[in-house]
Amino acid sequence: MSSDYARVDESVLREYTAAILRSAGMTEKGARIAASVLVMSDARGIESHGVARLPQYVKLSDAGALDPAAEPEVERESASTALVNGHNGMGQVAGDYAMRLAIAKARAHDVAAVAVRNSNHYGIAGYYAILALEHDLIGLSLTNSSPLVAPTGGRRAMVGTNPIAVAVPTGDGRPFVLDMATSTVPVGRLEVHARKGLPLQPGWALDAAGHETLDAAAGRAGVLLPLGGMAETGGYKGYGLGVMIDLLTGVLAGARYGLLIGGLWDATVPSDLGHFFLTLNPAAFGPIEAFHEQARDLLRRLKESERAPGVEEILVAGEKEWRAHDDARLHGVRLYHTVVSALDELGRRFNLGPLPARDETPY
Amino acid sequence: MSSDYARVDESVLREYTAAILRSAGMTEKGARIAASVLVMSDARGIESHGVARLPQYVKLSDAGALDPAAEPEVERESASTALVNGHNGMGQVAGDYAMRLAIAKARAHDVAAVAVRNSNHYGIAGYYAILALEHDLIGLSLTNSSPLVAPTGGRRAMVGTNPIAVAVPTGDGRPFVLDMATSTVPVGRLEVHARKGLPLQPGWALDAAGHETLDAAAGRAGVLLPLGGMAETGGYKGYGLGVMIDLLTGVLAGARYGLLIGGLWDATVPSDLGHFFLTLNPAAFGPIEAFHEQARDLLRRLKESERAPGVEEILVAGEKEWRAHDDARLHGVRLYHTVVSALDELGRRFNLGPLPARDETPY
Repeated sequence: MSSDYARVDESVLREYTAAILRSAGMTEKGARIAASVLVMSDARGIESHGVARLPQYVKLSDAGALDPAAEPEVERESASTALVNGHNGMGQVAGDYAMRLAIAKARAHDVAAVAVRNSNHYGIAGYYAILALEHDLIGLSLTNSSPLVAPTGGRRAMVGTNPIAVAVPTGDGRPFVLDMATSTVPVGRLEVHARKGLPLQPGWALDAAGHETLDAAAGRAGVLLPLGGMAETGGYKGYGLGVMIDLLTGVLAGARYGLLIGGLWDATVPSDLGHFFLTLNPAAFGPIEAFHEQARDLLRRLKESERAPGVEEILVAGEKEWRAHDDARLHGVRLYHTVVSALDELGRRFNLGPLPARDETPY
Repeated sequence: MSSDYARVDESVLREYTAAILRSAGMTEKGARIAASVLVMSDARGIESHGVARLPQYVKLSDAGALDPAAEPEVERESASTALVNGHNGMGQVAGDYAMRLAIAKARAHDVAAVAVRNSNHYGIAGYYAILALEHDLIGLSLTNSSPLVAPTGGRRAMVGTNPIAVAVPTGDGRPFVLDMATSTVPVGRLEVHARKGLPLQPGWALDAAGHETLDAAAGRAGVLLPLGGMAETGGYKGYGLGVMIDLLTGVLAGARYGLLIGGLWDATVPSDLGHFFLTLNPAAFGPIEAFHEQARDLLRRLKESERAPGVEEILVAGEKEWRAHDDARLHGVRLYHTVVSALDELGRRFNLGPLPARDETPY
């Protein structure tokens, strides 16, 4: 039975992705890290930030807008803070380096903050927050990004979809992982709705004239709305969160911010993105076992609370993604055939042979 | 010309509020702090969290559900973290104490986190974040609160309107101050709309059966929706933020959380709320002057960006509140006549005489 998807073994996909990245000029270690971030995204069901973006990263590298071989470097440091220069390398490499530094500092000093400048698109924000979990730390990951969102009352894209990710350990392998853009939807959602001829929902987008629109084509020609939509439905809060993240990333790190960012889709200039990572040790505030137990209790109570009509299950943040990841481990990572073709094309260019993918079969 | 409001001199209102709180059993210092928080809220135009709540605080104290004379105490401490026990005193006193401790720690170590347990409603979250500004620190303030918000897919109030406040110094007296509940609107908004016979907006509330409603009376009988509203418009993000805050406050501090919270409107049990404060020194990442300049530049670009049709001005977070505060300093704090009457009643009880308010005149 054929479908839109193929299935690829997770480690096979990671190896293939790393091989492409090495061929494109990344170091052995850097390629392994970037491949891990990209494949984790697909495995968790966030295909918009996964290997589908490989051609774009390679394009930036080909154009000289990104230095694939760059190694991140600490520029300023105190016991519990650091500023890292990504030297215009892959954002995944700088992000992984900075978060691991923040983890080491929080293990010694209970709380730490590391900012990154001169970086590029780092993939899913959640990857870095999740790194903190194996050390029983709370992890926070923020980044700015290309302007796509209008400020409340505005009609021009001035703010990125600037995501926030927070991971909280629960001691049971099912942590709380919030990983959300501060726009109502990603720009890709408008494209999918336009392609399928579906209307938008309120609070998603403005048209080019600055009016809210439910027309997908008009929304694509316009601008995204911040989380909350228009002012009456709390859009100024999503707008405020997006700007807060720009202040804590681009401005704090001395990187680009707001309208000054070219970003992933602009191969003419370095992105110079800013990231921000914070780590916090719950054991500094009380016994870790009690923290785990109460976190699990809170999440359990939410899941077991009374459902609205027609709702089958109440979810907590991260649950859907862990389930997708379990499925991917068992049955392979789901990739659109178009994405497989794009990877095959890169593979041909670098003499790697085609990606060993298989058609989806029903389970 | 008469109006719904009276005007009261800010320092007069603070003195009168402090006198009531001293009469209700607070210490001299504690009463001064709590009065500052409450009056700042009214002065900034957030009347829902201001002196209108004095009668409720006094009621909790009368009922023995809150200890007005309690002094906060450090229970655990490291160089850059602390756990504070509020000893069931006023939340403003514990919050002010904890934030000042976080400020001192960040001045020494660049980043610090202080959690508070066994506390009560602390007023506006922004007050504490703003305290960081005079030290050129970034301040974050979080609290949990009585359950009023449904989880996405749920129909019962399981999460508080759990606010987040972040203050970022800009060097020009006009800092970025985001202070937002993680519900779309506060519960008081439903009451105002019910009283005025106005419909609700989408994404504000569910009725008692768990369906979204635009009827204010039905919404009051139901439950608030998280920022973003229903799932299709991103409500799971506001829900995720609310739970994240409960994890970082109630769970991290070993206080109550979720459904276990009685809160401000329940005089039968101590609230045992949790707060969380974080302070960060931007000067650890680069020259403070560059940070100020780039923060101002980002905010200026937002304000000067092209406006949507019919919009007079694009605002940045905190701007409306600073303008209200400037107006309050010049012309007095605006108080509903009903609030003045409630304060007068407390004043009579404690033999303080009436509040020296004057009718509003147009400016």
